[in-house]
Amino acid sequence: MSALPPGSTIGILGGGQLGRMLAMAAARLGLRCHIYSDHSGPAFDVAAASTLGAYDDLDTVRRFAETVDVVTYEFENVPCATAEAAAQVKPVRPGVKALEVAQDRLVEKTFISGLAIPVAPFAKVDCDASLNQAAGALGLPAILKTRRLGYDGKGQVRITSTADLACARAAIANAPAILEGMVGFEIEVSVLVVRGLSGEMRFYDIPHNTHANGILDTSTVPAPITHETRERAFALAGTIAAALDYVGVLAVEMFACGEAASAPLIVNEIAPRVHNSGHWTIDACAVNQFENHIRAVAGWPLGPAERHSNAVMTNLIGADVDAWEQLAAEPASGLHLYGKNDPRPGRKMGHITRISPKTGD
Amino acid sequence: MSALPPGSTIGILGGGQLGRMLAMAAARLGLRCHIYSDHSGPAFDVAAASTLGAYDDLDTVRRFAETVDVVTYEFENVPCATAEAAAQVKPVRPGVKALEVAQDRLVEKTFISGLAIPVAPFAKVDCDASLNQAAGALGLPAILKTRRLGYDGKGQVRITSTADLACARAAIANAPAILEGMVGFEIEVSVLVVRGLSGEMRFYDIPHNTHANGILDTSTVPAPITHETRERAFALAGTIAAALDYVGVLAVEMFACGEAASAPLIVNEIAPRVHNSGHWTIDACAVNQFENHIRAVAGWPLGPAERHSNAVMTNLIGADVDAWEQLAAEPASGLHLYGKNDPRPGRKMGHITRISPKTGD
Repeated sequence: MSALPPGSTIGILGGGQLGRMLAMAAARLGLRCHIYSDHSGPAFDVAAASTLGAYDDLDTVRRFAETVDVVTYEFENVPCATAEAAAQVKPVRPGVKALEVAQDRLVEKTFISGLAIPVAPFAKVDCDASLNQAAGALGLPAILKTRRLGYDGKGQVRITSTADLACARAAIANAPAILEGMVGFEIEVSVLVVRGLSGEMRFYDIPHNTHANGILDTSTVPAPITHETRERAFALAGTIAAALDYVGVLAVEMFACGEAASAPLIVNEIAPRVHNSGHWTIDACAVNQFENHIRAVAGWPLGPAERHSNAVMTNLIGADVDAWEQLAAEPASGLHLYGKNDPRPGRKMGHITRISPKTGD
Repeated sequence: MSALPPGSTIGILGGGQLGRMLAMAAARLGLRCHIYSDHSGPAFDVAAASTLGAYDDLDTVRRFAETVDVVTYEFENVPCATAEAAAQVKPVRPGVKALEVAQDRLVEKTFISGLAIPVAPFAKVDCDASLNQAAGALGLPAILKTRRLGYDGKGQVRITSTADLACARAAIANAPAILEGMVGFEIEVSVLVVRGLSGEMRFYDIPHNTHANGILDTSTVPAPITHETRERAFALAGTIAAALDYVGVLAVEMFACGEAASAPLIVNEIAPRVHNSGHWTIDACAVNQFENHIRAVAGWPLGPAERHSNAVMTNLIGADVDAWEQLAAEPASGLHLYGKNDPRPGRKMGHITRISPKTGD
């Protein structure tokens, strides 16, 4: 349970922009990073060491783990076998259980609802008959989602009427799926909770998230929710983190169904990692989500999660980044570019966080 | 004059903690860094590339310059010949002139006083006779300082009475020197100005600096000076930056002699680089001194220099860093460790910046 001293090495599975920002946060604390990825990515330029290897090359994964003091990951689709191989050699934080839960929507929703936390109504779909049965039980419209590997709106299809049922499974390549009933939500918010080795938890203030084309567009803090709703959201996220015996930053996306203090909160999904909706913490908090994740997995004291400013984070997707020179000239903002060469449509190229004096509590 | 696009490479002469923090700031903007140093140092772990080479190995310096898009430096004792060799290949910003001026106290004081900016009374000392003459002219006590390579209180000796004169030059190894008369200063402050390729300048708020054992101990913002004094200090620093046709962050240390609005300001010395007294900007500004230096040398628009918080930066010198775990647990603070292994006495191992809500204008 003791903290890894400065000079220790954090191993990170995954080399994307989240790994990049984790490595920069670790460097601030005098910690080194070793990136493991199956392709070169944004994290490689800022890490002390890197290994190119397949995630299913478990011998290489174990050799990587030998060179580091603790292993973490920056994406939730790290194969569980990869994390287990690393865990034979060094602690893996957050653990394999968080991956198992987050990688499968059916497991995830079953787990969360098992904690008496509200989720959207759902049913398992693995054949046409179970789809038809689910549609009858949940009603339409509803959304058919693959159990695995969906993100940024991929791997899902909306079913508006019974006429859509025939083609729906084909649209997701007949993958094992769940059907999810609609919830009349007003806004999406997310809780970024960091849980330390000791079980201590700290919560960042809650952003209000908006999406465009299925991809996160903006995160705004503070969100238009009441103090009571915020506290309830913290409690739900804390329950999930504790149930997973989680170490690190966990993101919990929720729908807030109305503005009343008693407005229902429905958990949409969890991400067992630092999260795009927490990028605003870099510019608006003394210790950001990346540093608190590193602190947690390194067994350090958690840092303060308080914000010093209000913030609006906007993602730069694809060609949005072409405006970098104009964005760089804005007052009171932090511009973050991920070092990716090719601004393909839908690709996260960077973000900008506009800050303003703090309001709210 | 056009801006280097994201993905370009900044070459940095020097691999210490300033280079490290410059490289991290560049990464945030999607820029790569290539470090050049004659020994491995804290910057190597966070840079995309590094070259180990002697500073007087000009062929290697030129080859390094071929691989980058612009060259900057993180310490003022880069040999001018090194900077000139790099400048044959790629732009060097800030230029060689700033190095020439800052490397020699006699040249520096002559240059600054030539701009009609007050400096402490000084005289050239290169033999016993000139020392005695200088002591007679300036009076005692006074401080004998080597013209070159003095920093953190090294290379200087205080002369209290005529009895000290006989040994004083031996104490600085008979190096070429200046004798500096005392000024009755109240506090030391510093101006961090960033000047862009276009000549535009922005000024960070002014820290009040205190020292311990000749080494910077704390920098506190805002400093206890009047608005008018601050504006005069900005003007003096701006005059120096413009006279050097400077590009990047320039630090100008000044003595504020009294608290009145009309209190004299005396320029102590300049540093043609990011500066320890500007480290607080990482935690208290949307765009910190390191990023603004990178923006300037890359020809980007300058970022905002406004602070969002008050700040007290405290250096962690030598064994101070042993308290890292306790420091990491503090609220409302940013802890920065430089990745150095050996906490020798007098060595800068890290710093901590404690922030609080902004007061003042």
